[in-house]
Amino acid sequence: MNAGRTGRLIGVGVGPGDPELVTLKALRALGEADVVAHFAKAGHPSHARAIVAAHLRAGTEELPLRYPVTTEIPKHEPAYRDAIRDFYDASAAAIAKHLDAGRTVAVLSEGDPLFYGSYMHLHVRLGPRYPVEIVAGVTGMSGCWSAAGAPIAQGDDVFTVLPATLPQHDLERRLADCDAAVVMKLGRHLPKVRRALEKSGRLACAIYAERGTMPGAVLMRLADKPDDTAPYFAVVLVPGWENPP
Amino acid sequence: MNAGRTGRLIGVGVGPGDPELVTLKALRALGEADVVAHFAKAGHPSHARAIVAAHLRAGTEELPLRYPVTTEIPKHEPAYRDAIRDFYDASAAAIAKHLDAGRTVAVLSEGDPLFYGSYMHLHVRLGPRYPVEIVAGVTGMSGCWSAAGAPIAQGDDVFTVLPATLPQHDLERRLADCDAAVVMKLGRHLPKVRRALEKSGRLACAIYAERGTMPGAVLMRLADKPDDTAPYFAVVLVPGWENPP
Repeated sequence: MNAGRTGRLIGVGVGPGDPELVTLKALRALGEADVVAHFAKAGHPSHARAIVAAHLRAGTEELPLRYPVTTEIPKHEPAYRDAIRDFYDASAAAIAKHLDAGRTVAVLSEGDPLFYGSYMHLHVRLGPRYPVEIVAGVTGMSGCWSAAGAPIAQGDDVFTVLPATLPQHDLERRLADCDAAVVMKLGRHLPKVRRALEKSGRLACAIYAERGTMPGAVLMRLADKPDDTAPYFAVVLVPGWENPP
Repeated sequence: MNAGRTGRLIGVGVGPGDPELVTLKALRALGEADVVAHFAKAGHPSHARAIVAAHLRAGTEELPLRYPVTTEIPKHEPAYRDAIRDFYDASAAAIAKHLDAGRTVAVLSEGDPLFYGSYMHLHVRLGPRYPVEIVAGVTGMSGCWSAAGAPIAQGDDVFTVLPATLPQHDLERRLADCDAAVVMKLGRHLPKVRRALEKSGRLACAIYAERGTMPGAVLMRLADKPDDTAPYFAVVLVPGWENPP
Protein backbone atom coordinates (compact mmCIF):
# COMPACT_ATOMS: atom_id res chain seq x y z
CA MET A 1 0.00 0.00 0.00
CA ASN A 2 1.20 3.50 -0.74
CA ALA A 3 0.84 6.24 1.86
CA GLY A 4 -2.87 6.89 1.48
CA ARG A 5 -2.70 8.02 -2.15
CA THR A 6 -5.53 6.51 -4.15
CA GLY A 7 -5.20 5.76 -7.82
CA ARG A 8 -6.96 7.43 -10.70
CA LEU A 9 -9.91 6.14 -12.71
CA ILE A 10 -9.82 6.90 -16.46
CA GLY A 11 -12.82 6.30 -18.69
CA VAL A 12 -11.21 5.79 -22.08
CA GLY A 13 -13.22 6.13 -25.30
CA VAL A 14 -11.67 3.88 -27.95
CA GLY A 15 -13.90 4.96 -30.81
CA PRO A 16 -16.31 3.15 -33.13
CA GLY A 17 -14.24 0.12 -34.10
CA ASP A 18 -11.59 1.14 -36.63
CA PRO A 19 -8.31 0.86 -34.64
CA GLU A 20 -7.12 4.05 -36.36
CA LEU A 21 -10.02 6.05 -34.89
CA VAL A 22 -8.36 5.94 -31.47
CA THR A 23 -7.05 9.24 -30.10
CA LEU A 24 -3.54 10.05 -28.92
CA LYS A 25 -5.04 10.72 -25.49
CA ALA A 26 -6.52 7.23 -25.31
CA LEU A 27 -3.14 5.74 -26.15
CA ARG A 28 -1.47 7.82 -23.46
CA ALA A 29 -4.07 6.65 -20.93
CA LEU A 30 -3.34 3.03 -21.86
CA GLY A 31 0.36 3.71 -21.38
CA GLU A 32 -0.23 5.20 -17.94
CA ALA A 33 -2.66 2.57 -16.68
CA ASP A 34 -1.61 -0.10 -14.22
CA VAL A 35 -4.85 -1.95 -14.86
CA VAL A 36 -6.98 -2.01 -18.03
CA ALA A 37 -10.61 -3.03 -17.51
CA HIS A 38 -12.99 -3.93 -20.33
CA PHE A 39 -16.58 -5.07 -20.69
CA ALA A 40 -17.69 -8.09 -22.69
CA LYS A 41 -20.57 -10.48 -22.98
CA ALA A 42 -19.76 -13.65 -21.00
CA GLY A 43 -17.93 -16.11 -23.22
CA HIS A 44 -17.04 -13.45 -25.80
CA PRO A 45 -13.92 -11.33 -26.30
CA SER A 46 -14.24 -7.62 -25.51
CA HIS A 47 -14.85 -5.45 -28.60
CA ALA A 48 -13.26 -2.45 -26.89
CA ARG A 49 -10.15 -4.45 -26.03
CA ALA A 50 -9.85 -5.71 -29.61
CA ILE A 51 -9.82 -2.11 -30.91
CA VAL A 52 -6.70 -1.21 -28.89
CA ALA A 53 -5.11 -4.68 -28.59
CA ALA A 54 -2.04 -3.58 -30.54
CA HIS A 55 -1.38 -0.82 -27.99
CA LEU A 56 -1.67 -2.79 -24.74
CA ARG A 57 1.69 -2.95 -22.99
CA ALA A 58 2.99 -6.39 -22.09
CA GLY A 59 2.60 -6.84 -18.36
CA THR A 60 -0.39 -4.53 -17.96
CA GLU A 61 -2.89 -6.19 -15.65
CA GLU A 62 -6.27 -6.74 -17.28
CA LEU A 63 -9.63 -6.82 -15.54
CA PRO A 64 -12.33 -8.35 -17.74
CA LEU A 65 -15.86 -7.37 -16.70
CA ARG A 66 -18.37 -9.93 -17.99
CA TYR A 67 -22.03 -8.96 -18.32
CA PRO A 68 -24.13 -11.64 -16.64
CA VAL A 69 -26.98 -10.95 -19.08
CA THR A 70 -27.38 -8.83 -22.18
CA THR A 71 -30.56 -9.41 -24.17
CA GLU A 72 -31.62 -12.79 -22.74
CA ILE A 73 -33.95 -11.17 -20.17
CA PRO A 74 -36.19 -8.19 -21.11
CA LYS A 75 -34.76 -4.97 -19.65
CA HIS A 76 -37.92 -4.04 -17.76
CA GLU A 77 -37.98 -7.27 -15.76
CA PRO A 78 -36.76 -7.07 -12.16
CA ALA A 79 -34.50 -10.10 -12.75
CA TYR A 80 -32.60 -8.11 -15.41
CA ARG A 81 -32.31 -4.99 -13.31
CA ASP A 82 -31.15 -6.93 -10.26
CA ALA A 83 -28.56 -8.94 -12.18
CA ILE A 84 -27.15 -5.92 -13.96
CA ARG A 85 -27.11 -3.75 -10.82
CA ASP A 86 -25.25 -6.44 -8.89
CA PHE A 87 -22.81 -6.77 -11.78
CA TYR A 88 -22.03 -3.03 -11.82
CA ASP A 89 -21.71 -2.99 -8.04
CA ALA A 90 -19.26 -5.89 -8.11
CA SER A 91 -17.32 -4.36 -11.03
CA ALA A 92 -17.03 -1.03 -9.20
CA ALA A 93 -15.84 -2.85 -6.07
CA ALA A 94 -13.18 -4.74 -8.02
CA ILE A 95 -11.92 -1.47 -9.52
CA ALA A 96 -12.07 0.33 -6.16
CA LYS A 97 -9.72 -2.29 -4.72
CA HIS A 98 -7.11 -1.32 -7.31
CA LEU A 99 -7.72 2.41 -6.79
CA ASP A 100 -7.35 2.01 -3.02
CA ALA A 101 -3.98 0.36 -3.66
CA GLY A 102 -2.87 3.46 -5.60
CA ARG A 103 -3.20 1.93 -9.07
CA THR A 104 -4.43 3.82 -12.13
CA VAL A 105 -7.31 1.96 -13.78
CA ALA A 106 -8.34 2.60 -17.39
CA VAL A 107 -11.83 1.39 -18.30
CA LEU A 108 -12.18 0.91 -22.04
CA SER A 109 -15.38 2.11 -23.63
CA GLU A 110 -16.45 1.67 -27.25
CA GLY A 111 -17.32 5.02 -28.77
CA ASP A 112 -17.47 7.83 -26.19
CA PRO A 113 -17.51 6.87 -22.47
CA LEU A 114 -20.34 9.20 -21.39
CA PHE A 115 -22.59 8.75 -24.46
CA TYR A 116 -24.69 5.59 -23.97
CA GLY A 117 -21.67 3.70 -22.63
CA SER A 118 -21.45 0.99 -19.94
CA TYR A 119 -18.59 2.90 -18.34
CA MET A 120 -21.16 5.41 -17.03
CA HIS A 121 -22.41 2.84 -14.52
CA LEU A 122 -18.94 2.71 -12.97
CA HIS A 123 -18.53 6.49 -13.23
CA VAL A 124 -21.58 7.20 -11.06
CA ARG A 125 -20.45 4.62 -8.50
CA LEU A 126 -16.77 5.62 -8.29
CA GLY A 127 -16.72 9.27 -9.41
CA PRO A 128 -17.74 10.70 -6.04
CA ARG A 129 -14.92 8.82 -4.25
CA TYR A 130 -11.88 8.85 -6.58
CA PRO A 131 -10.06 11.16 -9.00
CA VAL A 132 -11.59 10.56 -12.41
CA GLU A 133 -10.59 11.56 -15.92
CA ILE A 134 -12.59 11.03 -19.12
CA VAL A 135 -11.02 10.60 -22.54
CA ALA A 136 -13.69 11.51 -25.09
CA GLY A 137 -13.98 9.21 -28.09
CA VAL A 138 -15.40 9.14 -31.61
CA THR A 139 -18.96 7.80 -31.29
CA GLY A 140 -20.27 4.81 -33.17
CA MET A 141 -22.74 7.01 -35.01
CA SER A 142 -20.00 9.42 -36.20
CA GLY A 143 -18.18 6.37 -37.52
CA CYS A 144 -21.30 5.30 -39.41
CA TRP A 145 -22.17 8.60 -41.10
CA SER A 146 -18.50 9.12 -41.96
CA ALA A 147 -18.26 5.66 -43.54
CA ALA A 148 -21.48 6.38 -45.45
CA GLY A 149 -20.21 9.84 -46.50
CA ALA A 150 -23.57 11.21 -45.35
CA PRO A 151 -23.64 14.80 -44.01
CA ILE A 152 -25.90 14.34 -41.00
CA ALA A 153 -26.68 17.80 -39.59
CA GLN A 154 -25.83 21.39 -40.43
CA GLY A 155 -26.63 24.96 -39.52
CA ASP A 156 -29.79 25.21 -37.44
CA ASP A 157 -30.78 21.55 -37.79
CA VAL A 158 -32.39 19.84 -34.81
CA PHE A 159 -30.67 16.44 -34.42
CA THR A 160 -32.16 13.62 -32.36
CA VAL A 161 -30.95 10.22 -31.19
CA LEU A 162 -33.81 7.76 -30.76
CA PRO A 163 -33.63 4.29 -29.24
CA ALA A 164 -35.44 1.78 -31.45
CA THR A 165 -37.17 0.47 -28.32
CA LEU A 166 -39.63 3.41 -28.38
CA PRO A 167 -43.24 2.65 -29.38
CA GLN A 168 -43.92 3.12 -33.10
CA HIS A 169 -46.18 6.17 -32.63
CA ASP A 170 -43.49 7.89 -30.55
CA LEU A 171 -40.80 7.12 -33.14
CA GLU A 172 -43.11 8.48 -35.87
CA ARG A 173 -43.85 11.67 -34.01
CA ARG A 174 -40.21 12.34 -33.15
CA LEU A 175 -38.91 11.51 -36.63
CA ALA A 176 -41.39 14.00 -38.08
CA ASP A 177 -40.35 16.62 -35.51
CA CYS A 178 -36.59 16.84 -36.20
CA ASP A 179 -34.32 17.64 -39.13
CA ALA A 180 -31.83 14.80 -38.62
CA ALA A 181 -31.91 11.63 -36.57
CA VAL A 182 -30.13 8.45 -35.66
CA VAL A 183 -32.15 5.44 -34.55
CA MET A 184 -30.02 3.17 -32.35
CA LYS A 185 -30.14 -0.40 -31.08
CA LEU A 186 -32.14 -1.74 -33.99
CA GLY A 187 -32.02 -5.53 -33.54
CA ARG A 188 -35.50 -7.00 -33.65
CA HIS A 189 -37.07 -3.51 -33.73
CA LEU A 190 -36.16 -2.88 -37.39
CA PRO A 191 -39.63 -3.70 -38.85
CA LYS A 192 -41.22 -1.19 -36.46
CA VAL A 193 -38.53 1.44 -37.21
CA ARG A 194 -39.08 0.95 -40.93
CA ARG A 195 -42.84 1.53 -40.52
CA ALA A 196 -42.22 4.64 -38.41
CA LEU A 197 -39.82 6.03 -41.03
CA GLU A 198 -42.35 5.37 -43.77
CA LYS A 199 -45.23 7.01 -41.89
CA SER A 200 -43.11 10.06 -41.02
CA GLY A 201 -41.98 10.44 -44.63
CA ARG A 202 -38.32 9.76 -43.82
CA LEU A 203 -37.81 6.30 -45.31
CA ALA A 204 -36.54 7.49 -48.71
CA CYS A 205 -33.46 9.21 -47.25
CA ALA A 206 -32.78 6.70 -44.43
CA ILE A 207 -29.46 4.82 -44.44
CA TYR A 208 -28.95 1.45 -42.75
CA ALA A 209 -25.50 1.08 -41.12
CA GLU A 210 -24.01 -2.01 -39.51
CA ARG A 211 -20.39 -2.18 -38.23
CA GLY A 212 -19.80 1.18 -39.97
CA THR A 213 -16.02 1.42 -39.57
CA MET A 214 -15.17 -2.28 -39.30
CA PRO A 215 -14.48 -5.14 -41.72
CA GLY A 216 -17.76 -6.42 -43.11
CA ALA A 217 -19.47 -3.05 -42.84
CA VAL A 218 -22.96 -2.85 -44.34
CA LEU A 219 -24.06 0.59 -45.54
CA MET A 220 -27.11 0.92 -47.77
CA ARG A 221 -30.36 2.79 -48.30
CA LEU A 222 -32.78 1.23 -45.86
CA ALA A 223 -35.40 1.19 -48.62
CA ASP A 224 -33.06 -1.14 -50.58
CA LYS A 225 -32.49 -3.55 -47.69
CA PRO A 226 -34.47 -6.66 -48.63
CA ASP A 227 -34.84 -8.12 -45.14
CA ASP A 228 -35.49 -6.94 -41.59
CA THR A 229 -32.55 -8.71 -39.97
CA ALA A 230 -30.32 -6.38 -37.96
CA PRO A 231 -27.88 -6.83 -35.09
CA TYR A 232 -28.44 -4.92 -31.85
CA PHE A 233 -25.72 -2.38 -32.64
CA ALA A 234 -26.93 -1.49 -36.15
CA VAL A 235 -28.31 2.03 -36.63
CA VAL A 236 -30.42 3.98 -39.10
CA LEU A 237 -29.16 7.41 -40.16
CA VAL A 238 -31.66 10.07 -41.25
CA PRO A 239 -29.63 12.95 -42.68
CA GLY A 240 -30.97 16.46 -42.26
CA TRP A 241 -29.76 19.51 -44.10
CA GLU A 242 -32.27 19.76 -46.91
CA ASN A 243 -31.21 23.13 -48.25
CA PRO A 244 -27.46 23.71 -48.31
CA PRO A 245 -26.48 27.18 -49.53
CA MET B 1 -0.36 16.73 -64.75
CA ASN B 2 -0.55 12.99 -64.15
CA ALA B 3 -2.22 10.68 -66.65
CA GLY B 4 -5.83 11.51 -65.89
CA ARG B 5 -5.75 10.31 -62.27
CA THR B 6 -7.53 12.77 -59.99
CA GLY B 7 -6.52 13.27 -56.39
CA ARG B 8 -8.46 12.34 -53.31
CA LEU B 9 -10.41 14.63 -51.00
CA ILE B 10 -10.20 13.81 -47.28
CA GLY B 11 -12.48 15.49 -44.73
CA VAL B 12 -10.42 15.25 -41.55
CA GLY B 13 -12.01 15.64 -38.14
CA VAL B 14 -9.43 17.05 -35.73
CA GLY B 15 -11.57 16.86 -32.59
CA PRO B 16 -12.79 19.43 -30.09
CA GLY B 17 -9.59 21.38 -29.41
CA ASP B 18 -7.30 19.33 -27.17
CA PRO B 19 -4.43 18.35 -29.52
CA GLU B 20 -4.39 14.91 -27.87
CA LEU B 21 -7.99 14.24 -28.96
CA VAL B 22 -6.82 13.78 -32.55
CA THR B 23 -7.08 10.26 -33.98
CA LEU B 24 -4.31 8.17 -35.53
CA LYS B 25 -6.33 8.22 -38.76
CA ALA B 26 -6.35 12.02 -38.85
CA LEU B 27 -2.57 12.04 -38.43
CA ARG B 28 -2.16 9.52 -41.25
CA ALA B 29 -4.35 11.69 -43.49
CA LEU B 30 -2.17 14.71 -42.74
CA GLY B 31 0.88 12.65 -43.60
CA GLU B 32 -0.63 11.58 -46.93
CA ALA B 33 -1.95 14.98 -47.97
CA ASP B 34 -0.21 17.09 -50.59
CA VAL B 35 -2.39 20.05 -49.63
CA VAL B 36 -3.95 20.86 -46.24
CA ALA B 37 -6.93 23.23 -46.39
CA HIS B 38 -8.42 24.93 -43.33
CA PHE B 39 -11.21 27.38 -42.60
CA ALA B 40 -10.83 30.55 -40.56
CA LYS B 41 -12.50 33.85 -40.00
CA ALA B 42 -10.76 36.50 -42.12
CA GLY B 43 -7.86 38.00 -40.17
CA HIS B 44 -7.79 35.15 -37.66
CA PRO B 45 -5.71 31.98 -37.47
CA SER B 46 -7.54 28.70 -38.12
CA HIS B 47 -8.60 26.87 -34.94
CA ALA B 48 -8.52 23.53 -36.74
CA ARG B 49 -4.99 24.17 -37.99
CA ALA B 50 -3.82 25.12 -34.50
CA ILE B 51 -5.05 21.77 -33.14
CA VAL B 52 -2.79 19.77 -35.46
CA ALA B 53 -0.02 22.34 -36.03
CA ALA B 54 2.58 20.07 -34.40
CA HIS B 55 1.82 17.34 -36.95
CA LEU B 56 1.95 19.35 -40.20
CA ARG B 57 4.89 18.21 -42.32
CA ALA B 58 7.33 20.87 -43.45
CA GLY B 59 6.72 21.53 -47.12
CA THR B 60 3.03 20.59 -47.12
CA GLU B 61 1.16 23.16 -49.16
CA GLU B 62 -1.54 24.96 -47.17
CA LEU B 63 -4.77 26.38 -48.53
CA PRO B 64 -6.38 28.80 -46.08
CA LEU B 65 -10.11 29.29 -46.68
CA ARG B 66 -11.25 32.62 -45.20
CA TYR B 67 -14.95 33.14 -44.43
CA PRO B 68 -16.01 36.49 -45.94
CA VAL B 69 -18.61 36.90 -43.16
CA THR B 70 -19.45 35.03 -39.98
CA THR B 71 -21.89 36.74 -37.67
CA GLU B 72 -21.71 40.32 -39.07
CA ILE B 73 -24.75 39.80 -41.30
CA PRO B 74 -27.85 37.91 -40.04
CA LYS B 75 -27.99 34.44 -41.58
CA HIS B 76 -31.44 34.83 -43.08
CA GLU B 77 -30.46 37.86 -45.15
CA PRO B 78 -29.83 37.31 -48.86
CA ALA B 79 -26.52 39.18 -48.59
CA TYR B 80 -25.26 36.57 -46.10
CA ARG B 81 -26.46 33.63 -48.16
CA ASP B 82 -24.97 35.02 -51.36
CA ALA B 83 -21.61 35.82 -49.81
CA ILE B 84 -21.30 32.44 -48.12
CA ARG B 85 -22.47 30.49 -51.18
CA ASP B 86 -19.94 32.30 -53.39
CA PHE B 87 -17.25 31.57 -50.77
CA TYR B 88 -17.99 27.82 -50.74
CA ASP B 89 -18.15 27.74 -54.54
CA ALA B 90 -14.76 29.46 -54.82
CA SER B 91 -13.25 27.22 -52.10
CA ALA B 92 -14.50 24.10 -53.86
CA ALA B 93 -13.06 25.37 -57.16
CA ALA B 94 -9.67 26.02 -55.56
CA ILE B 95 -9.63 22.48 -54.13
CA ALA B 96 -10.86 20.98 -57.41
CA LYS B 97 -7.86 22.48 -59.17
CA HIS B 98 -5.54 20.51 -56.86
CA LEU B 99 -7.62 17.34 -57.21
CA ASP B 100 -7.56 17.64 -61.00
CA ALA B 101 -3.76 17.82 -60.80
CA GLY B 102 -3.74 14.49 -58.93
CA ARG B 103 -3.05 15.94 -55.48
CA THR B 104 -4.56 14.62 -52.25
CA VAL B 105 -6.28 17.43 -50.33
CA ALA B 106 -7.07 17.16 -46.61
CA VAL B 107 -9.68 19.63 -45.35
CA LEU B 108 -9.38 20.12 -41.60
CA SER B 109 -12.61 20.24 -39.63
CA GLU B 110 -13.01 20.98 -35.93
CA GLY B 111 -14.95 18.20 -34.25
CA ASP B 112 -16.46 15.74 -36.73
CA PRO B 113 -16.55 16.72 -40.43
CA LEU B 114 -20.16 15.72 -41.14
CA PHE B 115 -21.69 16.95 -37.86
CA TYR B 116 -22.44 20.69 -38.16
CA GLY B 117 -19.08 21.25 -39.89
CA SER B 118 -18.13 23.71 -42.64
CA TYR B 119 -16.44 20.88 -44.51
CA MET B 120 -19.92 19.61 -45.46
CA HIS B 121 -20.33 22.53 -47.88
CA LEU B 122 -17.28 21.31 -49.80
CA HIS B 123 -18.36 17.68 -49.52
CA VAL B 124 -21.67 18.26 -51.31
CA ARG B 125 -19.92 20.26 -54.04
CA LEU B 126 -16.97 17.90 -54.64
CA GLY B 127 -18.22 14.49 -53.43
CA PRO B 128 -20.09 13.66 -56.64
CA ARG B 129 -17.00 14.33 -58.77
CA TYR B 130 -13.97 13.05 -56.81
CA PRO B 131 -12.94 10.15 -54.57
CA VAL B 132 -13.71 11.25 -51.01
CA GLU B 133 -12.79 9.84 -47.61
CA ILE B 134 -14.06 11.04 -44.23
CA VAL B 135 -12.06 10.74 -41.02
CA ALA B 136 -14.59 10.89 -38.16
CA GLY B 137 -13.60 13.06 -35.20
CA VAL B 138 -14.47 13.60 -31.55
CA THR B 139 -17.24 16.22 -31.51
CA GLY B 140 -17.05 19.46 -29.54
CA MET B 141 -19.96 18.35 -27.39
CA SER B 142 -18.28 15.04 -26.47
CA GLY B 143 -15.27 17.09 -25.43
CA CYS B 144 -17.49 19.26 -23.22
CA TRP B 145 -19.39 16.53 -21.37
CA SER B 146 -16.14 14.59 -20.92
CA ALA B 147 -14.40 17.63 -19.45
CA ALA B 148 -17.40 18.19 -17.17
CA GLY B 149 -17.49 14.49 -16.20
CA ALA B 150 -21.22 14.58 -16.93
CA PRO B 151 -22.82 11.33 -18.17
CA ILE B 152 -25.07 12.72 -20.91
CA ALA B 153 -27.28 9.88 -22.15
CA GLN B 154 -27.82 6.23 -21.32
CA GLY B 155 -30.05 3.25 -22.07
CA ASP B 156 -33.27 4.31 -23.77
CA ASP B 157 -32.70 8.07 -23.39
CA VAL B 158 -33.83 10.34 -26.21
CA PHE B 159 -30.99 12.80 -26.87
CA THR B 160 -31.47 16.04 -28.82
CA VAL B 161 -29.15 18.71 -30.18
CA LEU B 162 -30.85 22.11 -30.35
CA PRO B 163 -29.49 25.27 -31.97
CA ALA B 164 -29.91 28.24 -29.62
CA THR B 165 -31.33 30.17 -32.57
CA LEU B 166 -34.73 28.44 -32.16
CA PRO B 167 -37.60 30.54 -30.78
CA GLN B 168 -38.00 30.29 -27.00
CA HIS B 169 -41.30 28.37 -27.15
CA ASP B 170 -39.76 25.79 -29.48
CA LEU B 171 -36.71 25.38 -27.21
CA GLU B 172 -39.04 24.97 -24.22
CA ARG B 173 -41.19 22.37 -25.91
CA ARG B 174 -38.22 20.35 -27.15
CA LEU B 175 -36.31 20.53 -23.85
CA ALA B 176 -39.39 19.17 -22.08
CA ASP B 177 -39.77 16.42 -24.68
CA CYS B 178 -36.34 14.72 -24.43
CA ASP B 179 -34.24 13.02 -21.75
CA ALA B 180 -30.93 14.67 -22.60
CA ALA B 181 -29.98 17.67 -24.70
CA VAL B 182 -27.20 19.92 -25.87
CA VAL B 183 -28.00 23.51 -26.83
CA MET B 184 -25.40 24.80 -29.30
CA LYS B 185 -24.27 28.16 -30.65
CA LEU B 186 -25.23 30.12 -27.55
CA GLY B 187 -23.70 33.54 -28.11
CA ARG B 188 -26.29 36.28 -27.64
CA HIS B 189 -29.06 33.68 -27.30
CA LEU B 190 -28.07 32.65 -23.75
CA PRO B 191 -30.75 34.73 -21.93
CA LYS B 192 -33.47 33.10 -24.07
CA VAL B 193 -31.96 29.62 -23.56
CA ARG B 194 -31.85 30.20 -19.81
CA ARG B 195 -35.55 31.14 -19.78
CA ALA B 196 -36.44 28.10 -21.89
CA LEU B 197 -34.51 25.81 -19.51
CA GLU B 198 -36.25 27.34 -16.53
CA LYS B 199 -39.74 27.01 -18.03
CA SER B 200 -39.09 23.41 -19.06
CA GLY B 201 -37.80 22.52 -15.60
CA ARG B 202 -34.28 21.71 -16.83
CA LEU B 203 -32.29 24.67 -15.48
CA ALA B 204 -31.21 23.00 -12.23
CA CYS B 205 -29.25 20.26 -13.99
CA ALA B 206 -27.96 22.35 -16.92
CA ILE B 207 -24.19 22.78 -17.33
CA TYR B 208 -22.59 25.71 -19.14
CA ALA B 209 -19.49 24.75 -21.16
CA GLU B 210 -17.10 27.04 -23.00
CA ARG B 211 -13.87 25.80 -24.66
CA GLY B 212 -14.44 22.44 -22.94
CA THR B 213 -11.13 20.74 -23.75
CA MET B 214 -8.94 23.83 -24.19
CA PRO B 215 -6.91 26.13 -21.94
CA GLY B 216 -9.24 28.58 -20.23
CA ALA B 217 -12.16 26.13 -20.22
CA VAL B 218 -15.24 27.29 -18.33
CA LEU B 219 -17.46 24.52 -16.92
CA MET B 220 -20.13 25.37 -14.36
CA ARG B 221 -23.76 24.90 -13.44
CA LEU B 222 -25.65 27.36 -15.62
CA ALA B 223 -27.71 28.36 -12.60
CA ASP B 224 -24.45 29.54 -10.97
CA LYS B 225 -23.31 31.60 -13.95
CA PRO B 226 -23.79 35.20 -12.88
CA ASP B 227 -23.94 36.76 -16.35
CA ASP B 228 -25.40 36.02 -19.75
CA THR B 229 -22.21 36.54 -21.73
CA ALA B 230 -21.30 33.58 -23.93
CA PRO B 231 -19.23 33.10 -27.06
CA TYR B 232 -20.85 31.64 -30.17
CA PHE B 233 -19.28 28.21 -29.62
CA ALA B 234 -20.33 27.79 -25.99
CA VAL B 235 -22.91 25.08 -25.28
CA VAL B 236 -25.33 24.06 -22.55
CA LEU B 237 -25.40 20.39 -21.55
CA VAL B 238 -28.61 18.91 -20.13
CA PRO B 239 -27.71 15.42 -18.86
CA GLY B 240 -30.37 12.73 -19.04
CA TRP B 241 -30.26 9.39 -17.30
CA GLU B 242 -32.30 10.10 -14.19
CA ASN B 243 -32.53 6.55 -12.90
CA PRO B 244 -29.34 4.52 -13.25
CA PRO B 245 -29.65 0.92 -12.06
